[in-house]
Amino acid sequence: MSDQGPTLTDLEVRVVHSLDVEGMVEAIMELVAVPSWDGNETPAQELMARWMGEAGLEVDLWEIDQEALARHPAYSAEIPRARALGLVGTLRGEGGGPSLILNGHVDVVPPGDPALWTHPPFEGVLKDGRLYGRGALDMKGPLCAALFALRALGTAGVVLRGDVFLESVVGEEDGGMGTLATILRGYRADGAVVMEPTGLAVAPALAGALNFRVRVPGKAAHGAVRTEGVSAIEKFVPVYQALVALEAARNRRLAGDPLFRSYDLPFPISVGTIQGGDWASSVPDHLAFEGRLGVAPGEDLGEARRALESAVAEAADGDPWLRENPPWVEWWGGQYEPARVPPDHPLVAVVRESAQSIMARVPRVMAMPYGADMGLLVNHGSTPTVLFGPGDIRRAHRPDEYVEVEELVVAARTLAVAAMRFCGVVEG
Amino acid sequence: MSDQGPTLTDLEVRVVHSLDVEGMVEAIMELVAVPSWDGNETPAQELMARWMGEAGLEVDLWEIDQEALARHPAYSAEIPRARALGLVGTLRGEGGGPSLILNGHVDVVPPGDPALWTHPPFEGVLKDGRLYGRGALDMKGPLCAALFALRALGTAGVVLRGDVFLESVVGEEDGGMGTLATILRGYRADGAVVMEPTGLAVAPALAGALNFRVRVPGKAAHGAVRTEGVSAIEKFVPVYQALVALEAARNRRLAGDPLFRSYDLPFPISVGTIQGGDWASSVPDHLAFEGRLGVAPGEDLGEARRALESAVAEAADGDPWLRENPPWVEWWGGQYEPARVPPDHPLVAVVRESAQSIMARVPRVMAMPYGADMGLLVNHGSTPTVLFGPGDIRRAHRPDEYVEVEELVVAARTLAVAAMRFCGVVEG
Repeated sequence: MSDQGPTLTDLEVRVVHSLDVEGMVEAIMELVAVPSWDGNETPAQELMARWMGEAGLEVDLWEIDQEALARHPAYSAEIPRARALGLVGTLRGEGGGPSLILNGHVDVVPPGDPALWTHPPFEGVLKDGRLYGRGALDMKGPLCAALFALRALGTAGVVLRGDVFLESVVGEEDGGMGTLATILRGYRADGAVVMEPTGLAVAPALAGALNFRVRVPGKAAHGAVRTEGVSAIEKFVPVYQALVALEAARNRRLAGDPLFRSYDLPFPISVGTIQGGDWASSVPDHLAFEGRLGVAPGEDLGEARRALESAVAEAADGDPWLRENPPWVEWWGGQYEPARVPPDHPLVAVVRESAQSIMARVPRVMAMPYGADMGLLVNHGSTPTVLFGPGDIRRAHRPDEYVEVEELVVAARTLAVAAMRFCGVVEG
Repeated sequence: MSDQGPTLTDLEVRVVHSLDVEGMVEAIMELVAVPSWDGNETPAQELMARWMGEAGLEVDLWEIDQEALARHPAYSAEIPRARALGLVGTLRGEGGGPSLILNGHVDVVPPGDPALWTHPPFEGVLKDGRLYGRGALDMKGPLCAALFALRALGTAGVVLRGDVFLESVVGEEDGGMGTLATILRGYRADGAVVMEPTGLAVAPALAGALNFRVRVPGKAAHGAVRTEGVSAIEKFVPVYQALVALEAARNRRLAGDPLFRSYDLPFPISVGTIQGGDWASSVPDHLAFEGRLGVAPGEDLGEARRALESAVAEAADGDPWLRENPPWVEWWGGQYEPARVPPDHPLVAVVRESAQSIMARVPRVMAMPYGADMGLLVNHGSTPTVLFGPGDIRRAHRPDEYVEVEELVVAARTLAVAAMRFCGVVEG
């Protein structure tokens, strides 16, 4: 397959033209209007299941046994859920070809302050070629693009050899429990595309991200006699500085991977929250900060965690108070594993060349620095995976999230062509 | 008056023996059981007013016009109040003697986590000679001690020359609006005792405390590409370090006051709270920290504030991001003014010698490092004031707050004797 050129076959051209762009945009707007944050993904999953059925896919919709799932070592989730649904729609092939997973999540991050949005977060607004709304980009839009890619195959009368599994998953934003559930249900394939925003680049490598929390103890006293206490804020500073130093050392050591060369700091240790004390005039006796440790493909996660714990412990060792009252590190919430597939894997070539056929330019091939379900698929699902999707990750997780409709169309057409090239087409 | 020796007169001995210790303890337990935090002081004030009436005082209970009060430059309050009551009970003298204010507050700080209390915060529990409960020490206990001191004078048949004003005030813990209201209502005197916990030391000087908040801006980005953002947590560090340096410089410059020599750091800049970011994987675009700036008696408050603002501005100037996106300082909540009275003021001698008469030892004379209503009385009420009260300030503002009953008794007896010596007694 990898030797196929970028020129589209007649059948591929028919598929490309069969894409129902208007229907796709309407579907995205409808799906965006179904809020699916804070663990409430059931209505969105039920809508996706209905659409999969209407598209002629075999629909597997199931209640995830969260208790059983939580026993898996790769399980992580931050949000408690009353219910979680698994959903895979299968476009059954005739046999004799490689199988392909297309994976996207319906859960979205919270909208934040609605006042910061120009367009309401849960309406789905089309304006100037952009589709606005929470999840339009990350990643209800790309998930619908994959659905409409499969519909275009049907419309064009294409019959594939291998199976295509369209996975609509929950819980990606808080750790990936939905994709883990599909793996444990048995879904594996010869290749997978996760439609995260890559700006239409093909990403055969992914950094990992391990969420951590560090608690720094202090000793309360009235601020008027602050030397009788110990400020947890004061003691935070050397601990934080140790992590800054660790970040620099790690990135020096892990530098050199060409797929990460466009990032000036590919594996950041980023502290995202801090909270300490509860009264302006008291010496704060507690502080906690949370962050994410970026990890490189191939790194041992246990070693990476221990390196951070050691840096904290060494900082503590240099301080008389912290030596006796050590800060402690917790690993919580998202523990996104890094992953990579060999650059010469057929999947990489198929997606790259399909995108090139559609875009009439060579897509970039580069790693993505953010946690995604690719880690689970590669490391726990034995499925070679790339990330490929429309839009800029910088537009996600913020007010006025949007995706360019033009990029959605390119992504959908690329996925359709890639499915044909990867799974094989039954002639005639 | 200052030449009176420590030996008690027969009449003073009668007054000392007239103190109703049991009644005082019961009253404190009853008053502690009336929660008076978060701006809800009305029931406690109404109870105090009833007791003042029963003690034969002239009761002045009034609705504080908070809107008018808020226009006063020395006004500060953190908590919004539906109602605020002023309350002064006057023990009218026969005339011809100096007047005395006894000032105490009924508001208390929040109980915090009740699970940290061995004894319930709002019951008033007497155990092993200690009276436990929120406010037992700070300062419902001492306020009741003053009430029972005046009752003891009545029981012993003492008639004073000067008036004694027993001020029961609200809002001390969040800025002093209650005492400011008594001043604006016209209450002034030739001397005042504020019964804050001094451990039975006489405090003719008081440090000030100015609450501040500093906001540090950042720029949001996904933590995976953190160098595209600017971390408000990272930018907090140099700002904080500038305040640490300022604290050291100020305390070097302000050192030397013998009344403060028992404090290793008399005028701390203590940061009590910090809060920044709201997602572990995002670069935090905001951070705020709150603290208190300790100020010395005699310092110009405006200059002290400007020194802190300049330190923040200089730190910002050394950082390219902060130079363009400067942090800003807010002065909010309690703005407790420092104060002092001349060490040779008759009030100081009277309280010191009265305490010595009761305790049979020489009380310490030293400054207190915490904000208190003394600042308002001295600077805005033209009333020379000392702090004198039972118990250790370190037991206040924390779980299992308590006061030793024995110290309460010493305080009550000292106040009664001091009132006699300061206001003068009508013979026969």
